[in-house]
Amino acid sequence: MAEKLTPRAEDFSKWYTEIVQRAELADYSPVRGSMVIRPYGYALWENVQAGLDRRFKATGHQNAYFPLLIPMSFLQKEKEHVEGFSPELAVVTHAGGEKLDEPLVVRPTSETIIGYMYAQWVKSYRDLPILINCWNNVVRWELRTRLFLRTSEFLWQEGHTAHATREEAEAETLRMLDVYTDFATADAAVPVIPGRKSESEKFAGAVRSYSIEAMMGDKKALQSGTSHFLGQNFAKAFDIKYLDANNELQHAWTTSWGVSTRMVGGIIMVHGDDQGLRLPPRLAPIQLVIVPIYKSDAERSKVMAVAESLEKQLAGVVRLKLDTRDETPGFKFNDWEMRGVPVRMEVGPKDVEKGSVVLARRDLPGREGKSFVPQAGVADAVRSLLDSIQSSMLAKATAFRDANIREAANWDEFKAAVEDGFARVRWCGDGQCEAAIKEETKATSRCIPLDQPGGSGPCAHCGKPSAEIAIFAKAY
Amino acid sequence: MAEKLTPRAEDFSKWYTEIVQRAELADYSPVRGSMVIRPYGYALWENVQAGLDRRFKATGHQNAYFPLLIPMSFLQKEKEHVEGFSPELAVVTHAGGEKLDEPLVVRPTSETIIGYMYAQWVKSYRDLPILINCWNNVVRWELRTRLFLRTSEFLWQEGHTAHATREEAEAETLRMLDVYTDFATADAAVPVIPGRKSESEKFAGAVRSYSIEAMMGDKKALQSGTSHFLGQNFAKAFDIKYLDANNELQHAWTTSWGVSTRMVGGIIMVHGDDQGLRLPPRLAPIQLVIVPIYKSDAERSKVMAVAESLEKQLAGVVRLKLDTRDETPGFKFNDWEMRGVPVRMEVGPKDVEKGSVVLARRDLPGREGKSFVPQAGVADAVRSLLDSIQSSMLAKATAFRDANIREAANWDEFKAAVEDGFARVRWCGDGQCEAAIKEETKATSRCIPLDQPGGSGPCAHCGKPSAEIAIFAKAY
Repeated sequence: MAEKLTPRAEDFSKWYTEIVQRAELADYSPVRGSMVIRPYGYALWENVQAGLDRRFKATGHQNAYFPLLIPMSFLQKEKEHVEGFSPELAVVTHAGGEKLDEPLVVRPTSETIIGYMYAQWVKSYRDLPILINCWNNVVRWELRTRLFLRTSEFLWQEGHTAHATREEAEAETLRMLDVYTDFATADAAVPVIPGRKSESEKFAGAVRSYSIEAMMGDKKALQSGTSHFLGQNFAKAFDIKYLDANNELQHAWTTSWGVSTRMVGGIIMVHGDDQGLRLPPRLAPIQLVIVPIYKSDAERSKVMAVAESLEKQLAGVVRLKLDTRDETPGFKFNDWEMRGVPVRMEVGPKDVEKGSVVLARRDLPGREGKSFVPQAGVADAVRSLLDSIQSSMLAKATAFRDANIREAANWDEFKAAVEDGFARVRWCGDGQCEAAIKEETKATSRCIPLDQPGGSGPCAHCGKPSAEIAIFAKAY
Repeated sequence: MAEKLTPRAEDFSKWYTEIVQRAELADYSPVRGSMVIRPYGYALWENVQAGLDRRFKATGHQNAYFPLLIPMSFLQKEKEHVEGFSPELAVVTHAGGEKLDEPLVVRPTSETIIGYMYAQWVKSYRDLPILINCWNNVVRWELRTRLFLRTSEFLWQEGHTAHATREEAEAETLRMLDVYTDFATADAAVPVIPGRKSESEKFAGAVRSYSIEAMMGDKKALQSGTSHFLGQNFAKAFDIKYLDANNELQHAWTTSWGVSTRMVGGIIMVHGDDQGLRLPPRLAPIQLVIVPIYKSDAERSKVMAVAESLEKQLAGVVRLKLDTRDETPGFKFNDWEMRGVPVRMEVGPKDVEKGSVVLARRDLPGREGKSFVPQAGVADAVRSLLDSIQSSMLAKATAFRDANIREAANWDEFKAAVEDGFARVRWCGDGQCEAAIKEETKATSRCIPLDQPGGSGPCAHCGKPSAEIAIFAKAY
């Protein structure tokens, strides 16, 4: 614990890796590119899951489970899909002691096997829509991996829906993008820009892809969730057909959308500081830690009695922990700061005398974040403090992001903007123009925001007339 | 829906497969031996998960996640382990377009990779115990598969703990067996016999294995959960060592324990009848269905107003559904009976007039299961009815099981007993005797119950003196 983190300003990437390991969120595994999610990191992921799952169910979706292993021939049925995923596949060639007739791929995503099943289930327009989500693991063999951000295996949810009409499927695609935006903003305190991906950045097999893009602490972008309108591409590849109300056979329209354990990396990089993690209260596995402070055995018994009674009073109100370890208060303060617990409650002999406690906010340094609160009614004080931390974290992250998005009217301004933040620019949408931008600046088109100013103007790179603005940035 | 199920007495196995598909719990997939868990089946599994997860956390365990793909060499480090699992492995030989230097197996269980990680994390006795559980998917290539009961891929939880002493690890093994017993009994209404597995039936690599054994509707046994004391076998294979309080290096002691989607098959086979599923209220995805009954539009609007107000009144009290489909009440009754919803609430014009509703229990046929209840205070009535159904289902399943466990003092009685139920017999524990019994009767030793009568007597098969009784039965 004693060791300090590498400051973010010195080496953001090193800071990130240290924080993930020292806060015991995750660890490297002996399998290339795979990681172990440790209990504290997994508890954070469980809270992400709960926040998303609640929203999926509220929008009419149900969970289900489809097989991990997919026949290779399934992937080949959708041309762009197989081209996009081929380089990343892990392939099972032997099973039960024998060579398989047909190799099976470990799912990189499940459009194909789900398409096959939907074709069995859908007969009539009455069977539509199908609104299904899956919580599972996928494998995409990556060369350069990073804990949470890019791993050969990751955990995620993948939603897969089928609809009778194009309009319904398009509405679903945007509805789920909206669900992701709401989750990121309200629960993760991560402000995001929802928008359309460029042609070259879209999902392999999609007609249109959308994403939410967030700005990390180093001003780089992280794609934090995607939602795809698949048109009839997979319905045609897998023969998902239904009889419409006029008794005519039609292909269905499908969508897919996903958020992964990458979101955890985003939360770390948006909120963390040089002391460690800072977790938004809604997702924090531990929202409040009680640290008893004493010097003698006599003090200890008085303090512990109060600390334990506070623990009881607050159990069920907040997720909390009473730290009874045989360590100094200083050690404990550092440890819980590293782990990003939003509120620390200190209980010492003076607090016992006065009938009060100290509440210290993780998101505000030193004295500014401290308050003295009566023990009576402390539950209300903690609850309202957590709410205030949640909104303050979102406000800070939003202010940071907005201060680092620059409008760029010409190429020089563009280059300056993506050197140190996001560029918000008129862009022609052309693939060659996009490739040239990437070549010269390493920045990629993140998204074409849903929120558009209208009007027209010259593309910041090539000068062609452009009706839309786009976000460009260096990205994870 | 119209088609009747094959009666259980005619063909239990066919009945089972039909019920799984018609209640839309699961479906066959195009991948040999794998299944698709449909939303209704998955919702049931989610409730199983919640019931177990709550108990794991209450006993101090935390969830985590370990990689899906395990280097082949890891399995080879524990001799019995690799011998046991080799025939069932699915092997990834290619990834990212290249042949791998070392093949990776899709985890059949995670003792090896977890052993490797625990060796990194454990240094001192202060790092122990480690109490971790994982919710994940595993693959065991099976030749003869059956939906939920035996599939090449299945979902489960696997607990893995490491302790400083043999005593602690043994206590943990039995504690988790007890957690499983409590869950099966209290939540699934499935009475189980907790006991020790014979030497030949124990987990590959364990010192001792324990299981909970349940009796299905066809009087065959289903192993429904297992808990293993692994001694120092995996600690030695993976070098999980710690410095004890005297600063001496010791190997840790480990355990593992698991319950899988097989439990869903057990719930179906214990409770189902010729009309379909019967789900225990604590696990039922839908605990109450409201069926409005009307003949005219005028009746419809009166009835629906009341049905909707009841829906509001009961939301948050029970998991419920108001069935507004454009189908006859008869169709709906059959449909919800097939799906095993514990209570049906009927609301017709007469009920509206009288201010009452009809509550019909799924677990009691016809008039016996019906009651007329005032609309005012119906929430309490439903709650108490669900409790009564839960305990009644457990009582019935227990009575059925106990009526079909027979004591057998000699070989003829033994053979008769396992023809039509469980035999509870003195048994010598010898592997050859066990093999001979299996050869002649197809019955296997299910467990040596924890609850022993003491004393001694001749083995029911070979006559050797035996201090213990065992349960033998034909099993899934």
